Order: sequence, then structure tokens, then C-alpha cells
Amino acid sequence: MSAVPPPGLTLPDVWYVAARSKTLRAAPLAVTIQGRPLVLFRGRDGVPAAFSDRCPHRNVPLSMGTVVKGELQCQYHGWRFDSKGACTAVPGLVDGEVSLRSRCAETFACVEQQGFVWVYTTPNVEASSRPFVFPHFDEAPYSSVVREFLVAASVHAVVENTLDVPHTAYLHGGLFRTAQKSNVIDVVVRRHGTFAEAEFIGEPAPKGLVGRLLAPGGGVTEHTDRFLLPSIAQVEYRLGTKSHLMATSALTPVTDTETRVFVVVTFKLPLPAWLVKPFVAPIAGQIFAQDAVMLKKQTEQVKRFGGERYTSTELDVLGPQVTRLMKQAAAKEAPPEGVDEHRLRMKT
Amino acid sequence: MSAVPPPGLTLPDVWYVAARSKTLRAAPLAVTIQGRPLVLFRGRDGVPAAFSDRCPHRNVPLSMGTVVKGELQCQYHGWRFDSKGACTAVPGLVDGEVSLRSRCAETFACVEQQGFVWVYTTPNVEASSRPFVFPHFDEAPYSSVVREFLVAASVHAVVENTLDVPHTAYLHGGLFRTAQKSNVIDVVVRRHGTFAEAEFIGEPAPKGLVGRLLAPGGGVTEHTDRFLLPSIAQVEYRLGTKSHLMATSALTPVTDTETRVFVVVTFKLPLPAWLVKPFVAPIAGQIFAQDAVMLKKQTEQVKRFGGERYTSTELDVLGPQVTRLMKQAAAKEAPPEGVDEHRLRMKT
Amino acid sequence: MSAVPPPGLTLPDVWYVAARSKTLRAAPLAVTIQGRPLVLFRGRDGVPAAFSDRCPHRNVPLSMGTVVKGELQCQYHGWRFDSKGACTAVPGLVDGEVSLRSRCAETFACVEQQGFVWVYTTPNVEASSRPFVFPHFDEAPYSSVVREFLVAASVHAVVENTLDVPHTAYLHGGLFRTAQKSNVIDVVVRRHGTFAEAEFIGEPAPKGLVGRLLAPGGGVTEHTDRFLLPSIAQVEYRLGTKSHLMATSALTPVTDTETRVFVVVTFKLPLPAWLVKPFVAPIAGQIFAQDAVMLKKQTEQVKRFGGERYTSTELDVLGPQVTRLMKQAAAKEAPPEGVDEHRLRMKT
Repeated sequence: MSAVPPPGLTLPDVWYVAARSKTLRAAPLAVTIQGRPLVLFRGRDGVPAAFSDRCPHRNVPLSMGTVVKGELQCQYHGWRFDSKGACTAVPGLVDGEVSLRSRCAETFACVEQQGFVWVYTTPNVEASSRPFVFPHFDEAPYSSVVREFLVAASVHAVVENTLDVPHTAYLHGGLFRTAQKSNVIDVVVRRHGTFAEAEFIGEPAPKGLVGRLLAPGGGVTEHTDRFLLPSIAQVEYRLGTKSHLMATSALTPVTDTETRVFVVVTFKLPLPAWLVKPFVAPIAGQIFAQDAVMLKKQTEQVKRFGGERYTSTELDVLGPQVTRLMKQAAAKEAPPEGVDEHRLRMKT
Repeated sequence: MSAVPPPGLTLPDVWYVAARSKTLRAAPLAVTIQGRPLVLFRGRDGVPAAFSDRCPHRNVPLSMGTVVKGELQCQYHGWRFDSKGACTAVPGLVDGEVSLRSRCAETFACVEQQGFVWVYTTPNVEASSRPFVFPHFDEAPYSSVVREFLVAASVHAVVENTLDVPHTAYLHGGLFRTAQKSNVIDVVVRRHGTFAEAEFIGEPAPKGLVGRLLAPGGGVTEHTDRFLLPSIAQVEYRLGTKSHLMATSALTPVTDTETRVFVVVTFKLPLPAWLVKPFVAPIAGQIFAQDAVMLKKQTEQVKRFGGERYTSTELDVLGPQVTRLMKQAAAKEAPPEGVDEHRLRMKT
Repeated sequence: MSAVPPPGLTLPDVWYVAARSKTLRAAPLAVTIQGRPLVLFRGRDGVPAAFSDRCPHRNVPLSMGTVVKGELQCQYHGWRFDSKGACTAVPGLVDGEVSLRSRCAETFACVEQQGFVWVYTTPNVEASSRPFVFPHFDEAPYSSVVREFLVAASVHAVVENTLDVPHTAYLHGGLFRTAQKSNVIDVVVRRHGTFAEAEFIGEPAPKGLVGRLLAPGGGVTEHTDRFLLPSIAQVEYRLGTKSHLMATSALTPVTDTETRVFVVVTFKLPLPAWLVKPFVAPIAGQIFAQDAVMLKKQTEQVKRFGGERYTSTELDVLGPQVTRLMKQAAAKEAPPEGVDEHRLRMKT
């Protein structure tokens, strides 16, 4: 039985993607992170702000309201709040001060970068860190494709699935690995302070046409999977010297059993991007759809049986590392120094 | 944070409207009051009776049954009950008495008046009071319009909303008040033993055509809002000497978060009733629909956040009075003597 | 108030029908018994096996998988299990033993007989008994009709309803008994170690055409209702010397409030079976549909009122016996010796 994060594990002081920038327009937007209803809106100059999605007055959702001159106005009684959460209007009030502290909206630090709006999970504080930066995003000669999905499973389950190699031959059999396992490869697992990675050594290059297209000069295949706190899952491939591909998923816990996945596929290939891009989204979509069904069924079954009872093998390479890192973050422990490394073998 | 009635607050020894008279016909009718399933039926001479909606024998709903000669017959085994709840038939029984005490249905006092069937909330007792009487109902030269709605919110939330003035400019903006607030008026709040009222002094008369129609001779606008225990919310307007309008809502708690609203709009106007009536229902309907959405969202958000956290201002005129009166009734405290009065100012 | 089995009463060491044989084909089949998700599949030579429906690895439902050479293969990572639950494949694994004990599926004894797949309720043990055998099934000159239903009620509620005589005149009024009760008959109730029965003495023979067809030579009507542990409800009729009819229901608790009913109607009549069979299913279907609605409403009402509060009469002949037998089985008490007998009278 493997150790798994307890249900309801929520991480303080971390950043999650709340929405893609293009989703947050003139109207306020309701999102849920870690079970907490939030409202996002664009204040003066379009800078995003995030509040708890309830008016301090009568607790109706502020996301039902409208943005008036960069302030969020409640639909019920017309109270208004500026980007810092201060109450700026109580219509009808004659006597007394408007901007009382008790009338402030609960606020969350908010950062917009690379086309994503990130929200910090601890309310009413300055953030002590910056959000994750997607590597090579919008950096020549790289191209990126972004997609967003909702999965009925915990962040932990989605991360483990995303970084799990053996299931690809079965669940996605035919798509990119086959059940005919003939190669034995080495895997080096490294556990750092705030991330863990698995390097797959000896993985054969893709064969046939795909191989000639992606690694025209041949060369070594490098494959590394990573988990970075609080919830980044990354699969990185280098094929020879010409091809470099990263699929980076930023996961947002909507609730204990729902996760929003923002996938950024960034690549540099010996093929023009306009030729590659049309294939990336459908393939990612099909893989995602298969994984989503499995994760949903897994979540349902764990619930029906009253909890997880997992038997792991050494092939479950990163799952235990993810568990340990998430528990460390939840307990706000200092990241351990140094690197913990072990090796194993796997048939692929 | 304002004091609010705890969830699950149920009042003993009070009357609620169970149904409109015209809804209760030959067949038994299932209704729910304070979470308790009840069955209504018409006994001999059509006089309504109310039982807990389960057969004492095998607990199936008596509302599935039929009324036979003024007695309620269970569909499962044919047991019968008279209007007092006594068992009058156990088909198949050879030996022993039929009308055992253990076979009685649980009964509730029931009164039919002004087109409504009222039910008393304490079972198996004589009522110690009479139901509320709608003033001027069916009294010349008044006319009345009756409507029934279901709202996904507590009685307390619906009462506060019904008697709340400031939200009308925002939620119902354009319908009868505007957000352009220019008049400062006085409000006198009076807390009596079993009711509370707010008198709005200095409210301007309606302008333009409506004003000339409703208050042709001009004159003072009188506006008073009232809450009467256990659950009557009343808005009363007098415009000059010719126009008198009361919107009285009798609220029935279906569950802690569902309320059935029976609205009686009674009016005397310097216009013929046949001209006015066609406008009353649609306007009431639109106001209701907007309030119903807001109340539902408020209820949902309070639940999602794990409880209410309200910040009140003096503009929340009657809400605190309603809370205090409902708590007094729940605790069965004697109503305080005398009148408690305070004044405030409000922009409208 | 009658004693009833507490919610969640589950019996150990007993057999329930999991499915009809014809429902379990090449693909694995998900069923639920006593709230526990199970997967059935046919191993080598088609012999059925039953596991808990979760892969020991990552707890996804094994019923999503496929049967490969008589072994059940998980869809997620391709792990395989033989009919005894032993793990026979962990694809990708290089080092170490595959068939570790911790990788075994949880198994349940399984027997296929008379067209039904039966499952034993205690996991990972040899069964200490054999499943119930339907009498005269496939035995000349008897014929049988089998039907399967799902009811939203507990096993106890369904058994009591199935063996309850008085409700037939009301709920199924017109179908085979009428509310006009004129005959007084005797009922002998016998409580044995693992079953109870009620013999109805003096029940009149069917009249008119039906009577002449079924009991051409006249003669005595014998009618006995039985409950046999753990969940068999049987109604048996003999009309004269020529007609013998048994409706035997094997009930499977899906959850505390859902029961799957497998009904076997076995009969020997002075009419050809091809003439009778077309009538059996529709009549059984209509009776079932009426009972199913009533049982569902009963279950809902008991839940809404927070528990059962039944008032019984001596006409509730077998219900209390069923309760006592089920409690005895749940507590794993030794069946009492001898027979407990009492008599009563009933109007029919």
C-alpha cells in the first residue's frame, strides 16, 4: 500500500493557474480553486484581481456583478470594490464612512504572464514567490500549443498518470507505444528539494518515417519526466540534436476530486510548425480523453471502496516522489538539501 | 457579522399556509412544511385535515391513497383514517379492536380561510392561536391578486429580501427605482412584541403619468414595510387619499433552504381593477424572478462557504429585527412589552 | 413498532445470485452485492470467477478490462489475473517475482447452476455451503419462466412485500384478489431453524373459468408462503391434484436500499405450457411494477422521516419471522432446534 496524500490536502502559499488570459474578458469570471469559489476581474488598465466570490454584505456571488470603471460592482445592492478589495460604494448610505475594513473583499494575489492568470492560495497576503514560467514559451525557434481540460480526479492522481510510462502501452496502445515489450531500459530517479525527475536511458528512437522526420541525423533519444511543486508535470523529449519537445501541464485543484489541466506543448522540430501544429491538439486530445475516463473511474472506485489501496512496483517511478513532495509542501517543511538518486530497469 | 437564525430553525405552535384552497381537491395532496412530509385531504363536508404523510402500518405515503367517504384510505393495505386521524379499517383483521391508539395517524390542526389552507406546526394538539388574516381581502372597494412561488432560500432570507429597499434600485433597476439616488429620506424603525415595521418618511410621489393616475390630487406618499411573526412580510403604500396598496407575502418553510411564497396583492386605486389587474401579476412575476435567482445564488454561496458571514449597515433596516423576532418565537419567549424605536436616514 | 433489521445489515457466508448465466458472456461484468463492487468473468473452460472490482495496482475497475485466454487483464497497465486471483503479468517489470501475494485480486467463491451465477459473500475463503436449488426447475412435467427486476428497497422490505397477503386486494386489486372480504381462513405460522412458512388453510378455490381450468376435478387449495435464509421468498400453490405452482424469488442486496430480484415461476398445470407461459411474464410484470413503486415510496418515506416506525398486526404474518431469521444469520448464531408454531385467522 503506497502512501498517498490525504483527501482534502490543500497547499498554502502556492500559485495555481486560475484561467487562460483570453477567458478573462470584460465580465467577472467565477473559478474554483481548492474548493474555494473565487471571482476574477480586470481592474484599471486590465490588470487582473481575484477575490473570494461572495459580497461581504449579503454573501451573493460577486461574479454575478459587473465591472464599472475598473471596480467590481455587486448586482444585489450595488456595493463596489477596487482591485485591492476596498469597498468604494454603499449606495443609499448617508451617515458614516464607506470604506470600512469589515466591508473589504477577501483578496488573493494575482499575476498574469504567458497568457495565464495565476492566483496565490493564501488570502490577504503578499505572495512570497512567483508563478512557474513555462520554458521556451514564445521563444524562437520554439512553438507552443495550449489546451485546457477538466478531469474528475485529484491533482495527485492526474500527476501520477501524466508521468506514468507503463500505462501508455495499454491505455493508449497503438497510439505511441505497443504492448510488445522488448527493450530493457534504465531509469534514474532523482529527488530534489522541490522537484523530482526520472530520466529514461536507452529508450529507442522512433522508427520508420516518424523517426526519419524527427531525428533525421539519428542520435540519442533523451527522455525525462518531471514533477515540480506545487503541481507541474512535465514530459521532455530530445531526439538527436534537432528535435526538442516538452509537454508541461499546470494542474489546478478545483476540488479534492476535480482538476483543471492547462497543457502547454512547446516544441522545436526539423519540420515547420504550421505542419506540426494541426496534429498536436488532436493527439493530445485523444490521449487526454482516454486518461480522463480512466482517472474518473479510478476516483469513483476509490470512493466506492472507501479509500485507496494501492500496490506499487518499482515501475511506479514518480508517484511516491510526488506524494512526498506534496506532503512536504502541505506541512510547510523546508525542502531537503541535496539530491536523492536511485536506479531501476524497465521493459518498454 | 450579523446574528442570523441558525439553519434548521423551526418554529413550534405557529400557522403556515400549506396550499391554496383551489389546489386541494378530491385527491389527497402531499406538501412539505419545515421538512416534514404532510398529506392534506378533505374530510366530510369538504373540511380539510392534515396528517404526517406516512401510514402508521408500513410508512408508505398516505398521499398515494384515495379519499373514500371523507376518510383517507392507504393504497397499500387499505387502512382507513377519519379526519381526526383515528384508524377506522384494517382489512382482513378478524380478531381484536380496529381503532387502536397505536394505529392513529399523526394529525395537525388545519384551518381554511380566505382561499388558503393553513396548518399548525405542532402535531396532535389543539391550536392556541388563529392564522393570519389578510387585511382588506375581498373587502370592497379593494381588489386582490394571489400568486404562489417557490424559492430556493430560507424564510429568513426571503423575508429580508422582500422588505429590503436598497436592492430594488440595482437588482430591479429600471423597474421602479433607479440607481441615481438624490433624495434623502427618514426611516423610523419600530419593534413591537410580535412584529416590526419600518416607516419611510419623505419618499417622493411617483412622477409623470403614473403619478397623475395613482395620486391625482397629489398628497403625501406613505410607505411602511412590516414583518409579522411567524412569517408574514408586508409592503404597504398609500399615495394621497385615493391609492392604497398592500403586498402581503405569507411564507412557508418547505425545508431550511426552500420557501413557498403565497403573495396577496390587495389594492384600492383611482383606476378600475380590471385595468390594473393585468399588470400586477407580470410585474410581480418579474420582480420575483430576479429576487429568486439572487436568493438561490446567495443560498448556494453561503453553503459553499460553510455558513453566512454578513456585514450589515443601518440600511439593512428590518433584517436584524426579523432575526430577533424569529429567535424569540423559536425559544417560545414571551413577546417583550412596549415598542422599541430608532431612526435613520437613507438615500433613495 | 416492529423490530426491523438495522440498515446496513449484511450477511456473511451466504450465497446470492450475481447474474443470470446468459448475462455473463465474453466480456467481464460489473455487479454490486451488499454495496461491494464485483467483477465477474469466465475463466478457462468458461467457468465463472468473481473478484472485487478494483485492480490491486491502481484501483481502477477490472470490469473495464478484457478477458485474455481465461485471464482478466486490466485496461490501465495490463496486469493480468487468473481465476484464482493470482497476478500473472506486470508488463514492463524486469526484476523480481510477478505473482506476489500483495498483487492478488480479492476473490469470491462462485457457482453456476440452473442458469444463475451465484457468489459467496465472504472474500478469499472456501464456501461452507452450496447455493439454493430452485425446486422442480427443468424437471418434467414442470415448466419455468425466469425474470429479473431491480427494486429501490431493502431485501427485508421486498421479502415482506412478496410474502404479504393482505396488500394484494388493495395494491393489486382486480388482478387476483378483491377488497370484498368474506371468507375467514386459518393461518398456521411455523418458524424453523433457517426458514419460516405460513400455511393458509381454507382458502377458496378460484372460481369460474379459471377454477375449472386449473382445478378441473375440484379439490383442496393449498397455499404456503416461505422465507428461506438468506433471501429466498417463495409462494406455493396446489389446486386439487393437477395444478402446482411456485413463484420463487432469489433476492440480491445491491445496496441497503436496492434489491435485485430473480424470480423463477415453476408450474405444472392441466394446460399446455405453451398456452400458459405467455401470460405468466406480463402478469408477474404488472404485479411487480405496482409493488416496485410502493416499495420505492416506502423506502423514500422511511428515509425522509429518519427511520421506520411500523405498527404491525397479526396479519403481518411473516415479516417478524424474516427479521428474526436475518438477525440470527447476521450474528452467525446457530439456528434454533425444533419448530415454533402459532395460528391466526384472516379475512380474505
